[in-house]
Order: sequence, then structure tokens, then C-alpha cells
Amino acid sequence: MATSNGDHKSTFLDIYASLKSELLNDSSFEFDDASRQWVQRMMDYNVPGGKLNRGLSVIDSYKLLKGEDLTDDEVFLSSALGWCIEWLQAYFLVLDDIMDNSHTRRGQPCWFKLEKVGMIAINDGILLRNHIPRILKKHFRGKAYYVDLLDLFNEVEFQTASGQMIDLITTLVGEKDLSKYTLPVHRRIVQYKTAYYSFYLPVACALLMAGENLDNHVFVQNVLIEMGTYFQVQDDYLDCYGAPEVIGKIGTDIEDFKCSWMVVQALERANEDQKKLLYEIYGNADPACVAKVKALYKDLNLEGVFAEYESKSYHKLISSIEAHPSEKVQAVLKSFLGKIYKRQK
Amino acid sequence: MATSNGDHKSTFLDIYASLKSELLNDSSFEFDDASRQWVQRMMDYNVPGGKLNRGLSVIDSYKLLKGEDLTDDEVFLSSALGWCIEWLQAYFLVLDDIMDNSHTRRGQPCWFKLEKVGMIAINDGILLRNHIPRILKKHFRGKAYYVDLLDLFNEVEFQTASGQMIDLITTLVGEKDLSKYTLPVHRRIVQYKTAYYSFYLPVACALLMAGENLDNHVFVQNVLIEMGTYFQVQDDYLDCYGAPEVIGKIGTDIEDFKCSWMVVQALERANEDQKKLLYEIYGNADPACVAKVKALYKDLNLEGVFAEYESKSYHKLISSIEAHPSEKVQAVLKSFLGKIYKRQK
Repeated sequence: MATSNGDHKSTFLDIYASLKSELLNDSSFEFDDASRQWVQRMMDYNVPGGKLNRGLSVIDSYKLLKGEDLTDDEVFLSSALGWCIEWLQAYFLVLDDIMDNSHTRRGQPCWFKLEKVGMIAINDGILLRNHIPRILKKHFRGKAYYVDLLDLFNEVEFQTASGQMIDLITTLVGEKDLSKYTLPVHRRIVQYKTAYYSFYLPVACALLMAGENLDNHVFVQNVLIEMGTYFQVQDDYLDCYGAPEVIGKIGTDIEDFKCSWMVVQALERANEDQKKLLYEIYGNADPACVAKVKALYKDLNLEGVFAEYESKSYHKLISSIEAHPSEKVQAVLKSFLGKIYKRQK
Repeated sequence: MATSNGDHKSTFLDIYASLKSELLNDSSFEFDDASRQWVQRMMDYNVPGGKLNRGLSVIDSYKLLKGEDLTDDEVFLSSALGWCIEWLQAYFLVLDDIMDNSHTRRGQPCWFKLEKVGMIAINDGILLRNHIPRILKKHFRGKAYYVDLLDLFNEVEFQTASGQMIDLITTLVGEKDLSKYTLPVHRRIVQYKTAYYSFYLPVACALLMAGENLDNHVFVQNVLIEMGTYFQVQDDYLDCYGAPEVIGKIGTDIEDFKCSWMVVQALERANEDQKKLLYEIYGNADPACVAKVKALYKDLNLEGVFAEYESKSYHKLISSIEAHPSEKVQAVLKSFLGKIYKRQK
């Protein structure tokens, strides 16, 4: 029996349970009780607790590409790919939190902050990463597109890690240097660190399931990377101007000396005095300094700059999408855009 | 022109330079000078500085399987696979050193100990891991065995990370509990953490290049896992009894509360008083305690136990190998065994 669209989230969560159980009984490794329990707890703590948008969008995209309801088998397979993306994200987050020395994630302490975990979290991140090819092998080994799936996940992981690298070396602790923060640097970080795995990867998975050759979809990739960039710019904006009770966190990009779209835009527009001020106080956690940075953003009308960026991006994306020959592909791209345009959280 | 055996090491190092250059110009990522320089320095620091035995053994094994001199192209391809194993090892070592809070590796400070690196080393480890599929895709994408290579590296990495997990959770800091240290636990840690990637992986790569289906070589796998276990037992023995000037380091397994073959054998043979003593002082860095542990090993004649284990293992391995129908496969396995039997370092 085919599953209708609305049930996807609960079906998706059921499929998590089933993938988890397979991983805990993987015959390539002799689990004992202690190690099975460790991995189970580690997966439950880190994999399913997010919004699951990336994972769910594989099912939605595949359904739009197919143009009709999915069979149970197709729901399972597209969900399994969706979960691979959630696993990839969990792996990045577990390791990023260690590198950033973060405290909380998704409303709970970061995994490495738990007393019994500590630096073992590094290997746990590696294990999460290794679960992806296990899932792919078990469920896709016989498919014509299996090797393309492996290549896709490998390439996107490489791009994400490379984006993380430029982010890390640009904001090297002890070398707080605003002159490194420029629009092209910001674009590269966002494109590689976020856009490939969050926007391109889900659609690319759906395209492969639909029998498409990804080499023919460079246009789709470009649109999705553009959309992912727009999404991250919103994120940077909301970090400063979003309502904490709506976005679920208190932004600290200014305190953390982040290479945010906001500061990059401010640097583009500031006069010499304003630039001097930014160089002096950006990254200072003193609330008075943070307030001064925000006042400067106001003086430079960054809210207006953002509104114009948002509107321009939207119209550029819409006209790109409408130039695409396939209505099904258009539907996939518009569905993504609809979910993020003018979002408040 | 075919390259004779003796030149392999210098050819192998030339091929490192060529793979490195390809990775630094990978079109899947837009490098700038700073990021290219970072990755170059990071690779040079971590990849080529070991003994290169694992990597070189792919070329040697493939040559024995082929039964004649290799063409330049075959030398290149088997070397590229050898380097993938060295890259895999570099990735594990960079991350293991952070988890163990080690200070030195291969005669220089651990990568994460460098002032400018720190926790960025986690992402650098990830990058090293991501270089492997880049190398494989560039040079093997068109080969019939490409997908098997990807599966092989994925499976072996999963097994290694799983072995590392049981090692970490068995020796959890703050829970020093010798009752967890048993022969089956020691065997599982060694098998998964070391034997698969150090012994099975190089030969499996050579078998794939020779057109073999790995499913038909479970026997070869078992022999190599057995050999890898024997190798690690030697390592544990040499940590205690090896001459520091020969093995190039001063063993600290006793101080570090390691699940060494030595302590596991001691626990098997100790009477109640001796066990009580071990429980009290094993893992204590006080030289007097270390000396007492070593004296206990002497009382229990662990040198004799090791000599018997070594001789038995050797004869068991030899007779297994000689039962194999292919003389070429026998030659590969005997070459491995010859390199490690009665080694002093």
C-alpha cells in the first residue's frame, strides 16, 4: 500500500529504527553487549533529534520527480537515502561541536560534553560516517546507480570538509583578522560547508533514484547551491535580527567573530571610522561592544540591504527555475524555495 | 619500461608527489593559496613519514600475483592503492593521537600539538580520509573492480573504527577495571583495530587489481587476520621486552593501562595474590610499580609463553598457507610472514 505524503514523518522515524537495528547487527563486526549499547545510545543521541528537513526532502523530491504516489519500497529506499544525509549531518555536528568547543546542540549537551564520552566522540563521529556506506551497501548494492551514490556521498563529504577547512583557517583562534572576511570568502565557505550537503545532496539522491545521470543536471546543482547560499545568508541575518523565541537560540555570531554575511556586508559599506570601530570591537563578548556592532549594522541599513538581497535572490531563482525544461524538476526546486523564502526561523 | 623491485620505494615516493599535486588541484573544490598551502603542509606532515610497509606491500603483492615484472602503469596503480592505505593510516593516527592525548608520533610532535593546528586537526583527519575516494575516483573509475575497491575501503574503515571503539570503551579513563581485559577482548581489539587495514587490506587491493573476486578469498582473509594478530602480539611483547634503541621508542603500555597481550596473559596465569597485586598497580606510572609488574611477568615466565605462542602461530600459519591451491597466493602470504616472523622491531 502506498503511503500518502502526510505520513512521511512517522514512516521516516520507523525506518530510522529499522536502519539502526540493522547497523547494530552488522555481520562485518562482532558486537558484544557493551559495544552494541554504546553505538545504540550514540546514534539515538545524535542522529534523529534534528528537524529532519534534509532527510524528508529526499522522499518529497523523489515523489515530485516520479509524479505519482510512491510504493512502500520506494518510500523505504528514499527514506534510507534521507537518513544517510541525516547521518552525514550528525557526523559533521558531533565533530564540529568538538572543534568549536560548543556546549549545547539541539537543546541538549553536545555529545562530547557527556562525562563518559569526551574525546571518544571523535571516534563516534567516524562511526556515524561509516554507517552511511553500510546502509548504502545493504539496500542499494544491486541498483544500477549504486556506484553513483557512493561517488555522490564521497564528493559531497569532501566538499563539506573542505568548506569547514576554509571556515576554520579563516577564523583561526589568536589571529582575529577582519581583513580576511570578504564576500567571496563568505560565499565559498557557505557554498562548500552548507549548500552542497543541505540542498544539492537530497535532490541528487532523488535524481539518482529516478534513473537520472547527474552529469546532465549541473543546472539543477547550480540553482540548489544558489538556494543554499541564500538560506545561509538568512541564517546569518536571523542570528542578529531573529526573535530568540522563534529561532530557538540566542545568536552569538558577533561575540564569536564569525565570518557572517552581516559583518562582510558591513565591511563593504563602512567608512574608515566605522571600519576602525569594527576592527576594534568585533568578536568582543562584552554586551556593550555587541550593542555597538548592532548599532553600526543599523546605521549601515543592513536590514534594508538584506531585504533587497532576499528579493533579488528570490526573483533570480524563480526565473532560473522556470527556464528549466522539466516541469517535474521545476516542482522539486520550487518546493525547496517555497520552504525557505522569507522564513522567520 | 618496467620498474624492478628494488626501485619501488623511490618510485613510490615520486607517486606520492604526483597524487598530492592532483589533490591540491581537485576541481571539486575552489582552492585559494591559503587553503592549498594548509592541505599541502598537512599531507606532508602526516602521510609519508612512516615506514610505508603497508603501502609498499600492495605493489609487492600484486607483482607476486601477476608472476612477472609490472608495467609502469601497473606500478602506478598498485602504488596509488598503496598510498590510499597510507592515507587511511595517517587519518587514523591524526585522530587517535588527539583521543589518546599523545605528544609525539614518528619522531615529531603530533599534528594537533602544533600551535596553529589544535582541534583543526580533527577536520584535517577527515580531509585525509576524503582524499582516498578522490584518488580512487581519478585513477580507478573506469575499472571493472572500482565499486569493489570502494566497498573494500569502506568495510575496512568500518572495522577499524569499530575496533578502535572497543579499545576506547574497554579502557575508559576513570574506570580502570582489569576484569574487562581478557583474551577474547584482546583478540577482537587487535583483529578489528589493526589486522584488517594493515594485513588484509593491502592483499585485498592486489587481488582486486588481479581481477579476483574477494568473496572467493575468505581463506586468505583469515590467514592475514591471524598474521595481523600475531604481529600485534609481537608489538605488545616488544613494548615490554624490546630494546628501546631498536624499536625506536620506550614502551609505556603498563603505565598507560593498555589492554596488552602481556597483561592479559598475566591475568590468565596469576594466582590470587598476584592478581591482587596487578589490580593494585597496573596503570600506575610510578617506576617502582612498573618494575613490579615486569617482575611479575618474569615470575609468570611470559617470555617463555611468548616464545611458545610465536612458534605455534608460525607453524599454524605456514601449514595453512601451504594448503592454499594457488602458488602465487602462497608466495604473497609467505612474503608477509617472512617479514614479521621473529622481528626485533
